[in-house]
Amino acid sequence: MKSVAWESGKIIAVNQAALPHHCEQIEITTVDQLIGELRRLSIRGAPSIAAAGALGVLLAATRYQRDGELDTLEIESEARRIESARPTAVNLSWAVRRMITSLDGGLSALADEANAILGEIADSNETLARITADFLVEQVETSPTRVMTHCNTGWLATYSTGTALGAIMEMYSRGTLAHVYCSETRPLLQGARLTTWELDMAGIPHTLFVDSAATHLIGRGCIDCVVVGADRIARNGDTANKIGTMQLAVAARHFGVPFVVVAPYSTIDLEISTGDDIPIEQRSEEEVIITGDNGSAVLSTDVENPAFDVTPAELITAVITEEGIYGRG
Amino acid sequence: MKSVAWESGKIIAVNQAALPHHCEQIEITTVDQLIGELRRLSIRGAPSIAAAGALGVLLAATRYQRDGELDTLEIESEARRIESARPTAVNLSWAVRRMITSLDGGLSALADEANAILGEIADSNETLARITADFLVEQVETSPTRVMTHCNTGWLATYSTGTALGAIMEMYSRGTLAHVYCSETRPLLQGARLTTWELDMAGIPHTLFVDSAATHLIGRGCIDCVVVGADRIARNGDTANKIGTMQLAVAARHFGVPFVVVAPYSTIDLEISTGDDIPIEQRSEEEVIITGDNGSAVLSTDVENPAFDVTPAELITAVITEEGIYGRG
Repeated sequence: MKSVAWESGKIIAVNQAALPHHCEQIEITTVDQLIGELRRLSIRGAPSIAAAGALGVLLAATRYQRDGELDTLEIESEARRIESARPTAVNLSWAVRRMITSLDGGLSALADEANAILGEIADSNETLARITADFLVEQVETSPTRVMTHCNTGWLATYSTGTALGAIMEMYSRGTLAHVYCSETRPLLQGARLTTWELDMAGIPHTLFVDSAATHLIGRGCIDCVVVGADRIARNGDTANKIGTMQLAVAARHFGVPFVVVAPYSTIDLEISTGDDIPIEQRSEEEVIITGDNGSAVLSTDVENPAFDVTPAELITAVITEEGIYGRG
Repeated sequence: MKSVAWESGKIIAVNQAALPHHCEQIEITTVDQLIGELRRLSIRGAPSIAAAGALGVLLAATRYQRDGELDTLEIESEARRIESARPTAVNLSWAVRRMITSLDGGLSALADEANAILGEIADSNETLARITADFLVEQVETSPTRVMTHCNTGWLATYSTGTALGAIMEMYSRGTLAHVYCSETRPLLQGARLTTWELDMAGIPHTLFVDSAATHLIGRGCIDCVVVGADRIARNGDTANKIGTMQLAVAARHFGVPFVVVAPYSTIDLEISTGDDIPIEQRSEEEVIITGDNGSAVLSTDVENPAFDVTPAELITAVITEEGIYGRG
């Protein structure tokens, strides 16, 4: 199953905002609708966002053509709107810009390019899972291994196999995985809602914990390594990922546990030298407020809701991409 | 306002489980009911639990008497049940055991002892707030100071003025507080529900954040010191407090920010030498599950829900009690 796909001139996406209560697909027929779905995280996860971005430019191209001629100015303008729907993930820019460079070839060239991008994402997923599983067997002393992960990095997030969660599933299929510990990942609970759902589907033993219990579990020796994804990686290895990731890296370093980042090579932003240059998306206060009788009310309370944090390279044991492993040893 | 009180032979408590939606009081007339309210956290926070425990023994004594004679065996048995309602907070045992030593004096001696315990808790609250505010003005370079806190340690939790939050309010009244950053404190959101409510009532500027954003905020230099309460402190200074506290201590140390624990002297358990001897209460899976359309479903997912963690003494800048400051400098 793929998180997004192109069918009969429309984008078909798994509605991740409805999981795990409802497994439903949404049909996206306009760029406005795509931007809305990206913002409300129906489509999320850096590689899935990239795939959706590529298909979004294709969608724009099918709308802005006349007598077989593409209106390149309009399509470029739509592409820029898509690109800015989510500011932290660099993969979205990567995919959209690649599509723009194919604009001159017309609709069929764009369709080929989108297809190529989706294929590359799928290939990089598979390679990543394999390389990471190899690396962890070699680097982590305890096998089978107890892995902690954060947020969701399975096929929902990454279009096909998964990055960090793909590697975890690969370890399971090799018999080198003992257990997965998933953070719930507030505020939007992608760990609780999506990672447990994917693990449950795959029959992999796992335990859910509140984000605040991560350091406790690491400190008690329950975890052999922490494996996470990435939304953007600076040239020096500083890595932006879901809020709470740096917390895991600081705890892993404190207790001497390996901390590994797994991401497609397109996540590396060669234009920025350090994490200081990565913009941190601030999301709405409403995401933090839990409604209902057991929930919170904020009265006049101000809320700070950063969607990402930046883990300094020195806290990362290895950054693994399909092009190779950085920082090994 | 007090979190618990004795009125006409009953315990009257603010129902903290209903806040901030409803500010309501509950009347407790039996030991069974008290234990239920302690377990469902209608009454919570180590000093408030201690006050409720003292009043619980008084309540048992009013029930188990005949012709003016107390049935000491029954009352002791009820006291042991109260004592075991919450295993981590040592203050509960402290208060219950003190009451038992007054059993021989009859009902009026028990009433005096309960009154004395409640008075001591209130006095220690006030002293703690003053000593901690003094300490922070002296130790923290930046004034007015931006303080991060976790969970709820105001009058709801501590019977009267508050411990960590009492100190924060004292700093505000002195003009040395710039801003309070409150974690939401999953799973039961005592920070989001109770601390913001108390701060809002007091007109103190504050910002709420998801627990996972704590390290990010500390790392970005938004915080001058972290101040928290405690549920039990070992002789060596290892401190049990709400799950997520150790995470703040690890982050504070990593980024060079002072980390201060504020608690009544009765929180120190002289019978245990290190934090390894502190039992960690595991609570129900249901507390972690957020219901509703935006919530999580766990399917067959296993949940680990420790209520507390233990911060090693070496990560604590100072433990402040009304009897003095440990670990200063």
